[in-house]
Amino acid sequence: MIHQLSIPTPGQGLHDITGRVADVVHRSGIDEGLCTLMIQHTSASLTIQENADPSARRDLESWLNRLVPENDALYTHTDEGPDDMPSHIKAALTATTLSIPISDNRLALGTWQGIYLWEHRRRGSARQIVVHIAR
Amino acid sequence: MIHQLSIPTPGQGLHDITGRVADVVHRSGIDEGLCTLMIQHTSASLTIQENADPSARRDLESWLNRLVPENDALYTHTDEGPDDMPSHIKAALTATTLSIPISDNRLALGTWQGIYLWEHRRRGSARQIVVHIAR
Amino acid sequence: MIHQLSIPTPGQGLHDITGRVADVVHRSGIDEGLCTLMIQHTSASLTIQENADPSARRDLESWLNRLVPENDALYTHTDEGPDDMPSHIKAALTATTLSIPISDNRLALGTWQGIYLWEHRRRGSARQIVVHIAR
Repeated sequence: MIHQLSIPTPGQGLHDITGRVADVVHRSGIDEGLCTLMIQHTSASLTIQENADPSARRDLESWLNRLVPENDALYTHTDEGPDDMPSHIKAALTATTLSIPISDNRLALGTWQGIYLWEHRRRGSARQIVVHIAR
Repeated sequence: MIHQLSIPTPGQGLHDITGRVADVVHRSGIDEGLCTLMIQHTSASLTIQENADPSARRDLESWLNRLVPENDALYTHTDEGPDDMPSHIKAALTATTLSIPISDNRLALGTWQGIYLWEHRRRGSARQIVVHIAR
Repeated sequence: MIHQLSIPTPGQGLHDITGRVADVVHRSGIDEGLCTLMIQHTSASLTIQENADPSARRDLESWLNRLVPENDALYTHTDEGPDDMPSHIKAALTATTLSIPISDNRLALGTWQGIYLWEHRRRGSARQIVVHIAR
């Protein structure tokens, strides 16, 4: 089963999509299987991270922004603005696809895990994620 | 098929879980298929790395510790100790899920590849990995 | 279905394998499903990146070479040459496995996405990728 999710992002940072994905799994009716996500962009990515304290996500964002700053003299790919090349690098360092087991018709995530769309462009947009579910 | 693995880790570093996963694949009886692993934590991760010379894993650990040191003034998420936020960052930079083809009822790994649980907390614990196997 | 791809690489950098993978998907005859790739090496990796402007790939390569330089005093795993340990680190920071949904017998990639084999050794070689396709 293939399902398309469109996720609007307000700007840089980790946006929780656990509920949206859990809903697709629930409606699939599949009891035990695998849910695979692929984000159809190279300037945003996916990650599974702590869902409890928002400070962990804020620190992740700050740390990655410091590792991959804008306006680095190394960049030649700058046509779309200073946040363009950093976005591609951040996407390469995190994940474009994730595969999460399904058990009892639910995502088999750990207690403190959430699924996040990591927007790397300053200005967010409508991001497309393809969801594949199978036994 | 879903299987739960509990892996005790003695502390930071890469712990070989290839044998444990290969055993689950063997017992599944599936000849050709896909084996997906997801670690249910955000302060430990998964990686496929060289299984020959242990110095490669030691260097990986040293390099990542230098890139993501403890006691960075940037961190605000520090309640669980100095190794808490570095662990989340290291998990984001490596993998939470891996999907490995199965051929002839065996993991289709390369000759020099092993599957590792990468513990990022100083003090290890019992880590949970969900294994999904299908044709 | 399992298929083995052998990809010759001329040296360091991102090598487009989208056509090779798309061909395997097409010949599988599967309309809707999942295509999983695993590279059987730990000194090369996989990534989904922008397929339009080659400058993005060149900048990715330059940036990663600066983050993970050769001849770092930290390395002890140096028997195979100065590009050996950097290759393992780069592989750990990017992806060894990718899972891409299939829709209408085609890889459900975004418009600007391509699949790349990222060669990290100076001298390329024949790299093996295992492809698993299922509904």
